[in-house]
Amino acid sequence: MHTLHVELGERSYPIYIGRDLLNDPQLLGAHLTGSQVVVVTNETVSPLYLDRLLAILGERALVTEVILPDGEQFKNLETLNQIFDRMMHDRHNRSTTMIALGGGVVGDITGFAAACYQRGVNFIQVPTTLLSQVDSSVGGKTAVNHPLGKNMIGAFYQPQAVLIDINTLHTLSPREFAAGLAEVVKYGLICDLPFYRWLQEQTPRLLAREEAALAEAIERSCSSKAAVVAADEREGALRAILNLGHTFGHAIETAQGYGKWLHGEAVAVGMLMAMELSARRGWIEPAEVVAFRDLLRVINLPVAPPADMTPGQYLDLMGRDKKVIDGRLRLVLLRGMGEACIVDDATEEELVSLLETFR
Amino acid sequence: MHTLHVELGERSYPIYIGRDLLNDPQLLGAHLTGSQVVVVTNETVSPLYLDRLLAILGERALVTEVILPDGEQFKNLETLNQIFDRMMHDRHNRSTTMIALGGGVVGDITGFAAACYQRGVNFIQVPTTLLSQVDSSVGGKTAVNHPLGKNMIGAFYQPQAVLIDINTLHTLSPREFAAGLAEVVKYGLICDLPFYRWLQEQTPRLLAREEAALAEAIERSCSSKAAVVAADEREGALRAILNLGHTFGHAIETAQGYGKWLHGEAVAVGMLMAMELSARRGWIEPAEVVAFRDLLRVINLPVAPPADMTPGQYLDLMGRDKKVIDGRLRLVLLRGMGEACIVDDATEEELVSLLETFR
Repeated sequence: MHTLHVELGERSYPIYIGRDLLNDPQLLGAHLTGSQVVVVTNETVSPLYLDRLLAILGERALVTEVILPDGEQFKNLETLNQIFDRMMHDRHNRSTTMIALGGGVVGDITGFAAACYQRGVNFIQVPTTLLSQVDSSVGGKTAVNHPLGKNMIGAFYQPQAVLIDINTLHTLSPREFAAGLAEVVKYGLICDLPFYRWLQEQTPRLLAREEAALAEAIERSCSSKAAVVAADEREGALRAILNLGHTFGHAIETAQGYGKWLHGEAVAVGMLMAMELSARRGWIEPAEVVAFRDLLRVINLPVAPPADMTPGQYLDLMGRDKKVIDGRLRLVLLRGMGEACIVDDATEEELVSLLETFR
Repeated sequence: MHTLHVELGERSYPIYIGRDLLNDPQLLGAHLTGSQVVVVTNETVSPLYLDRLLAILGERALVTEVILPDGEQFKNLETLNQIFDRMMHDRHNRSTTMIALGGGVVGDITGFAAACYQRGVNFIQVPTTLLSQVDSSVGGKTAVNHPLGKNMIGAFYQPQAVLIDINTLHTLSPREFAAGLAEVVKYGLICDLPFYRWLQEQTPRLLAREEAALAEAIERSCSSKAAVVAADEREGALRAILNLGHTFGHAIETAQGYGKWLHGEAVAVGMLMAMELSARRGWIEPAEVVAFRDLLRVINLPVAPPADMTPGQYLDLMGRDKKVIDGRLRLVLLRGMGEACIVDDATEEELVSLLETFR
């Protein structure tokens, strides 16, 4: 097992990465302070891992299980309220600990519930998908979606600990696994070129789910994210580089209806768009865009956006992005391979031209 | 005008108290950073003060007015979502500033919306009721109610500034004004005995809404609250003393249906119960309880709880209180006049006996 530390002063916490962590009562127990626990999971994950988690919880005065329907389309205020209803009904108080067992949707909504329930209770992440292990479980961004935009209602709220049991990846569907790899590749592109080159080589091992390769990829992704978050917890500026591909990607997710495209799939295409724009500005070689498209194909990720989306639709949805400041859209591009930057000077013409290319 | 400072490190903010502050564009302008503003108010307050506020906002690129129905029964997730819908529809981004113009309900729900919208935007309080001026606008507690408990869903989120224009008190209904005085009296009881004695003397001047007396009462209340909050922002222990009368009071509000009893009315009776319990423990003189009941009568506040509530109902509702820790109910009592304390050793027998007395 490896332990990474996210350094955030009094809000610091450990990320444990290893095999069979869901069989280790000590690890979880060290972060459970009270006698009340709420486990939030979903219909897909609960038959696989809920019993194992309950077994390592040990004796607790009150354990509530909340099993949500599976999918991004349920990450909304109504589902959040269902969690609150259960907790109020079962009389959970401020000393309770909420555990998110599942992917990014479960983690985001549980974290937001923990941030708001009685103005804040303890929270532990047990991410079971590759995407949530490398992305959404690290950094304290919690949220639900609004019909007009992803993750628009939320809080910055750090967990007490993150437990990444890489064994859980063996039950992940190929589509979900590929979507997670999109976020792994992102870390290479934005801040770790050697890791990106390693990924270009090692993708077959990852796709075969070799544990040593998985552990390496997850550790390097989490440590990149932890470093960025430690430097800029509340997304003053630096942290925004983690959103490479996300502005285009969120527009796709919102336009298609939450849940139709997986987050990682939309981000993959969004990164391709951002790279193409970076190449047009002369910041990276066009050959890198071609090679990245090839990598997405190997992973079996989409390389084109939905055929029915118009440039006007993107511009409208991107205009609602959280990174818009006083009317100026900020985009994450690559100033070079392994080196992300934020620009706010993309013109409508430049964007329309780019988006037309991808139709 | 007087300025108090709530000292919370990087989250510190000023409270301005004075006459005609709603005619001063400078004061508000100094705390408005971006070109987008959302004013949240209610149907009662908007005809009185909204135009005045809009006038001092000056030229802004985007101003959204959200006018909520008036009443505690609307302080819920549905109303919160209506605010989000309007903000998303009008494309407010992270640089927007939300202004709460109204009483405690408007302030609590607007503050919570500001805490969650795009994970946090700027927020200014313009409280227009006595209760919100001395209580809910200071200290950063924001929340909405859950059907099973008051203020159960919320956040600690500090405003950029609080503007208390005491002129707004001249339009307050006698019932709302009396409810606000209950919270004023609370500060005397918990931590400022000279102030409590002053209030016993000066209540007629306050009831006549003499501005000098009002300014004095508001300043002393806010400075007591600011001192407590600065010492314990997230209610570790000390801050809980601000909840004198609130555990009983919240049970009354929840049982009667939000909005039937005003918060200050329920707290008044709750404080009477807490004083009676303190007297039974020999901590304060029984004569003080009698004198306090007389003071409530002078203010025209209730001195008895709803006739239909049973001890069992209180115990059930109080068992859901946020101050319950691992099953132990914590109550705020008076160890002496002007000196609150927290106890967790009240037995069911002691409480039932107390509650029976009040039937």
